[in-house]
Amino acid sequence: MKDQADRPLPTFEDVIAAHERIKPYIHRTPILTSEYMNKLTGAELFFKCENFQKAGAFKVRGACNAVFGLSDDEAAKGVATHSSGNHALSLSYAAGRRGIPCNVVMPRTAPQAKKDAVRGYGGIITECEPSTTSREAVFAEVQERTGADFVHPYNDPRVIAGQATCSREFMEQVEGLDAVIAPIGGGGMISGCCLTLSNIAPHVEIYAAEPEMADDAYRSFKAGHIIADDAPNTIADGLKVPLKENTWHFVSQHVTDILTASEQEIIDAMRLTWARMKIVMEPSCAVPLATILKNPEVFRGKRVGVIITGGNVDLDKLPWMAG
Amino acid sequence: MKDQADRPLPTFEDVIAAHERIKPYIHRTPILTSEYMNKLTGAELFFKCENFQKAGAFKVRGACNAVFGLSDDEAAKGVATHSSGNHALSLSYAAGRRGIPCNVVMPRTAPQAKKDAVRGYGGIITECEPSTTSREAVFAEVQERTGADFVHPYNDPRVIAGQATCSREFMEQVEGLDAVIAPIGGGGMISGCCLTLSNIAPHVEIYAAEPEMADDAYRSFKAGHIIADDAPNTIADGLKVPLKENTWHFVSQHVTDILTASEQEIIDAMRLTWARMKIVMEPSCAVPLATILKNPEVFRGKRVGVIITGGNVDLDKLPWMAG
Repeated sequence: MKDQADRPLPTFEDVIAAHERIKPYIHRTPILTSEYMNKLTGAELFFKCENFQKAGAFKVRGACNAVFGLSDDEAAKGVATHSSGNHALSLSYAAGRRGIPCNVVMPRTAPQAKKDAVRGYGGIITECEPSTTSREAVFAEVQERTGADFVHPYNDPRVIAGQATCSREFMEQVEGLDAVIAPIGGGGMISGCCLTLSNIAPHVEIYAAEPEMADDAYRSFKAGHIIADDAPNTIADGLKVPLKENTWHFVSQHVTDILTASEQEIIDAMRLTWARMKIVMEPSCAVPLATILKNPEVFRGKRVGVIITGGNVDLDKLPWMAG
Repeated sequence: MKDQADRPLPTFEDVIAAHERIKPYIHRTPILTSEYMNKLTGAELFFKCENFQKAGAFKVRGACNAVFGLSDDEAAKGVATHSSGNHALSLSYAAGRRGIPCNVVMPRTAPQAKKDAVRGYGGIITECEPSTTSREAVFAEVQERTGADFVHPYNDPRVIAGQATCSREFMEQVEGLDAVIAPIGGGGMISGCCLTLSNIAPHVEIYAAEPEMADDAYRSFKAGHIIADDAPNTIADGLKVPLKENTWHFVSQHVTDILTASEQEIIDAMRLTWARMKIVMEPSCAVPLATILKNPEVFRGKRVGVIITGGNVDLDKLPWMAG
């Protein structure tokens, strides 16, 4: 399946163009601060609330950039992707705004709530078996039949340029940041941070936060080449996917360090954020705070931007209530 | 116990003075909007997020106004109140900021989490038995011993003037509101809305939202005099207290209507807000949305300001997970 990875890497001019293109369809999300969190960490933290973003996550930035960058001829055939997470929701939302079809290949075993949410945004689901072989075969069939443009969840240069608009806004909204930290899964958001900050604020440190239980980016970073795990298992379910060549390009060149946290540390940081900051966010979003609490010496005295990546969580299954 | 109810009713000049006085100690809370909620209700809704307020609720406005309005001599003796809810937290926070003692009388049966939270803000708890007789006796003893200034949770004119700063900010932040809606318990927030809006925007309708299971304000409003219930029982536990003479003054004169919602309607609206708007809020805050959904004809086509009053909720006991 053609995944646009062969397109040229995005430049900062692509980010500026992406920002203009997607502005009508996204929120300029607010920044929250918390005196309590500052005291607790010894840092000055600024939380960029992409959980308040359209479709509930930053992913809508990249999805809108891909969808609204298509020519009318291309767009007429629609877009397609495989995802059971926020990218599927976001691409369905973006396609709906443009009035074109969005085909999503999802394992038949995906939670009904996820399927309902994708359909709620107008996405057309084609189910596959829960295996890579089946997913690729079904996706190839869908793409063949529709001629749809494949928008990869994170390795697509258009997606990286779209995600990069988040840190661009962040720099406009908060002066004098010393560091930015975000969770890392496939690396789309972190690559966007690298792209923006290396161009407009190269002194700002970039930290990626990852679950210990899915620490393939951490091990890749230390080894100097991509290491992909087969089936990592973590409560931060948005972070299970591996780096790919385009995101690896940015991560390997511009990330300051990758820090990890245990499952319990992630759950504790998630609960603490809900309790003190009164925001609903996904487990993935708690990984940065968990790593800040675990490594206070790295962040003490700094002005740190923390990206809260999404808020699409199952309210019936909160991790601190499990068991 | 002397409860300051004999002080003169607050004027809009008191509100302006209160706003200046408390600004250093409170957040100017943000406004959130949701396309989804607008489609669902047919109205244009603006949510004023006092759940992001200091100490987690709007109550800190009134508490700060009372605490920072004291002379140094008065302040030296501290403040006191009886409450096991947000007023206790807020008064403890305000007193802590001024560096004076805050005595709180709480039933010994109050949840440990509430006691911990009050102590976390520096409040000194004196326990009483869970009865009005015991509470009054213990409170009188505390006041006698300390000489502390009694700050009533809602009937105190200084508290009403403080709460009134919320709707003043709201009018500055959103143009052309047709109506404002907030939950009603003792009536402090609604009285504040009445005080502000009757002075600066008398055309704006004021709706109060109340649980059916604790509808004493609704019945008072219809009857034309205060009706107090003995022990109402609702999941919206911030709204169990009755109106008193000062809040009744404002409610009876300026409220457009009082609307009610069932327990299930409140729970559904709460869950919907968490799921769609990604904010953590108390059950009480869901009563306005529940009544808007129940009475769409009242709000359709209007620009409606909804006050989300607080976010101090027990994350281990979410109402849709009960049983």
